[in-house]
Amino acid sequence: MSLVDALRAVVGERQVLVDADVRAPFEVDWTRRFRGSAAAVVRPGSADEVVAVLRACAEHGAAVVPQGGNTGLVGGSVPRGGEVVLSLTRLTGLGQVDRASLQVDAGAGVTLAALQGRARAAGLDAGVDIAARDSATVGGLVACDAGGVRAVRHGTVRARVAGLEAVLADGSIVRRTSGLLKDNAGYDLPGLLVGSEGTLGVITAVRWRLVARHDARALALVPLASLAEAAELLAAVRPLLPSLDACEFFTDEGLSLVLEHLRASAPVELRAAAYVLIECAAAADPLEELAAAFEAAGVEDALIADDTTGRERLWRLREAHTEAISAAGIPHKLDVGVPIDRLAPFAAAVHEAMPPDARVILFGHLGDGNVHVNVLGPDPDDDAVDEAVLRLVAGHGGTISAEHGIGVAKAGWLHLTREPGEIAAMRAIKAALDPGGLLNPGAVLA
Amino acid sequence: MSLVDALRAVVGERQVLVDADVRAPFEVDWTRRFRGSAAAVVRPGSADEVVAVLRACAEHGAAVVPQGGNTGLVGGSVPRGGEVVLSLTRLTGLGQVDRASLQVDAGAGVTLAALQGRARAAGLDAGVDIAARDSATVGGLVACDAGGVRAVRHGTVRARVAGLEAVLADGSIVRRTSGLLKDNAGYDLPGLLVGSEGTLGVITAVRWRLVARHDARALALVPLASLAEAAELLAAVRPLLPSLDACEFFTDEGLSLVLEHLRASAPVELRAAAYVLIECAAAADPLEELAAAFEAAGVEDALIADDTTGRERLWRLREAHTEAISAAGIPHKLDVGVPIDRLAPFAAAVHEAMPPDARVILFGHLGDGNVHVNVLGPDPDDDAVDEAVLRLVAGHGGTISAEHGIGVAKAGWLHLTREPGEIAAMRAIKAALDPGGLLNPGAVLA
Repeated sequence: MSLVDALRAVVGERQVLVDADVRAPFEVDWTRRFRGSAAAVVRPGSADEVVAVLRACAEHGAAVVPQGGNTGLVGGSVPRGGEVVLSLTRLTGLGQVDRASLQVDAGAGVTLAALQGRARAAGLDAGVDIAARDSATVGGLVACDAGGVRAVRHGTVRARVAGLEAVLADGSIVRRTSGLLKDNAGYDLPGLLVGSEGTLGVITAVRWRLVARHDARALALVPLASLAEAAELLAAVRPLLPSLDACEFFTDEGLSLVLEHLRASAPVELRAAAYVLIECAAAADPLEELAAAFEAAGVEDALIADDTTGRERLWRLREAHTEAISAAGIPHKLDVGVPIDRLAPFAAAVHEAMPPDARVILFGHLGDGNVHVNVLGPDPDDDAVDEAVLRLVAGHGGTISAEHGIGVAKAGWLHLTREPGEIAAMRAIKAALDPGGLLNPGAVLA
Repeated sequence: MSLVDALRAVVGERQVLVDADVRAPFEVDWTRRFRGSAAAVVRPGSADEVVAVLRACAEHGAAVVPQGGNTGLVGGSVPRGGEVVLSLTRLTGLGQVDRASLQVDAGAGVTLAALQGRARAAGLDAGVDIAARDSATVGGLVACDAGGVRAVRHGTVRARVAGLEAVLADGSIVRRTSGLLKDNAGYDLPGLLVGSEGTLGVITAVRWRLVARHDARALALVPLASLAEAAELLAAVRPLLPSLDACEFFTDEGLSLVLEHLRASAPVELRAAAYVLIECAAAADPLEELAAAFEAAGVEDALIADDTTGRERLWRLREAHTEAISAAGIPHKLDVGVPIDRLAPFAAAVHEAMPPDARVILFGHLGDGNVHVNVLGPDPDDDAVDEAVLRLVAGHGGTISAEHGIGVAKAGWLHLTREPGEIAAMRAIKAALDPGGLLNPGAVLA
């Protein structure tokens, strides 16, 4: 039996897409930077079907690229050429919220927006938010250990995983969906699968830990003379802010571009070199906590908003960075992380390393040292620019990927921030769990 | 060169203990249930020395049992016979609290009490507490993914690990101590080492995530007609209690024993079948939140304490269980977990399965379904009693270990709550990272 026939026998003819035009949307990522041709796109409707699909692929020696909402930024969910794309979007089962454990069961194909809706209806919160919420799926978020602006409070997606169900390369199932917060019987296979980007197993369902919902919010925009002052501000106020919910930063370069793009004027009269957005959220009254922390830290110059309109106006300055940069050209975009106290020297080093006519824009999540590096000017296809930035990341004790993942885009650079012994251990684990190398080949490990 | 000479060459003669009486305290656990003779006890003073010790042991084909404070309950840190005990208690480096990230670097040998002290001095909290805090070490807590009463709020020790340094069997070092909250570059080797009980690597240092300190506390003891009502109570109030800090349970059997042991009278006039302790902690005023939640849930009969004396008196009823049970005989003690909504049927099944003259006492952490099963009466050496309980755990969708670990005590029963495919994956990982099988042989995987 041919591979396609074998797949049809498992999921039915309608769920195996072979026509080029029907496959097309599954073969390219949304940035259009990564694309490849798939042998077929298969859309199983249950974990058992995923087992059967993986077994069929193993029998045919066919490589498999798992795919969720296909919103990734590092080419990890599109075929490189000839693989079977395993789309999980039909696994949309979404349970009722368990009020005793504050957990909910979600199929891998449930979108983040749907999960957030279910949480809100129970008076709770999903604990994670990213811009791609309407398309990004639970399975993809977990496979990539996504981050976002709320990680400073709740951790990355890893912290939301109370358990999961996944299918390993040999078709065996890891099933830990009882929602046991404490379960240290043997190795944490679910934890190993989180962030493994589909190279060690295919996630089919997640037991998701919800968090308390905080409806009262207060936001401050603090203009500062340097990124070094931004890190100092955080150190001064963070221990005083148990309700800290987000801590973002951007610089004058980015703000200029944003204001130009939005045709708006600066919200602060005195233009500064760096800006920090600090948001607190609580059941009630976070403004008082924020004001007390600012007084203790000697912060005098801050724009504070505690109503929705004011907050949205300030958040827009941060959130419009991506579109403002895209409007200005095709940038080199790198998601990296550095220890918070190295942010300023890292930023200076990046500016210095880039050509004098380049526009270097850094912004991101100050609270967890997650920096989005954007460079406008140099040829977008010149990998030397990316590599130069990543080498500086390594030199400052950082990571070449904070929240986007390694995918195929950065697999060749993993050695920059991982020791040879660590990479050898990763390769040994990959070989142990997927000896045929059929799960998402080329992603994570080059 | 002999193994002992090779070890002496690494750490110096004084740090290799070979005399039987000097080795003795390292060869038996504190319950005196597990013991074995060690070839030597070696006490390295740095991660580099750990590397050299592991390399020397590998050259001599000598098995190694890593040991922290030796407070474990499942025999995972004492020799079975002839291994080298690798004691990490000299790794006591403890850094200053990083206020921007709320993290602190701690050597594997730092005690939990010392870590808690450092956190408190910075106005923060370690986020974990267990009774053995004065002896239990950071390395041991992480290797076993310890739990405790605060896990309902902060998660288990796993959630406290912002990074770690560990030595693998081949002497290579996993070093992720930059404290990057977001770092998804490659597989989460630190996460795999958490809870692996020294079978995949030796943890030498941890980057620990601290949490906010909550000084205002309110505690309620709620008498209920059944354990089923306890689970219902939790489901009714939990979504209303963002400041929930602990949620414990015990039953009339345990309380009788405790009151007898303490020679005290019952704190509630009407004796009940089950009791729930609910503690909230916040920067200020958790009592109001607690009272509002109880009103919404229709709880009328509760003892509430918001001063230190009153809280200590109520907590004593829960905390005295272990000593009261020990005073009454040598019990079968099993640390297990079941989904919260299965607690009542599980408890009924355990009572039914035990001999009629046995005293069956269940208590523990309701908020995370962690049950400590104690059975007084049957021969303490009769493994059939333990196995019967663990089979019931499996039948109720639970885990045979919640917070104590598998060690050697439960390795033979791992298959009860882990699928064959999962155990095969664990064995494959073990073989990949420790092909010689030299790290803590016999623990976790039989």
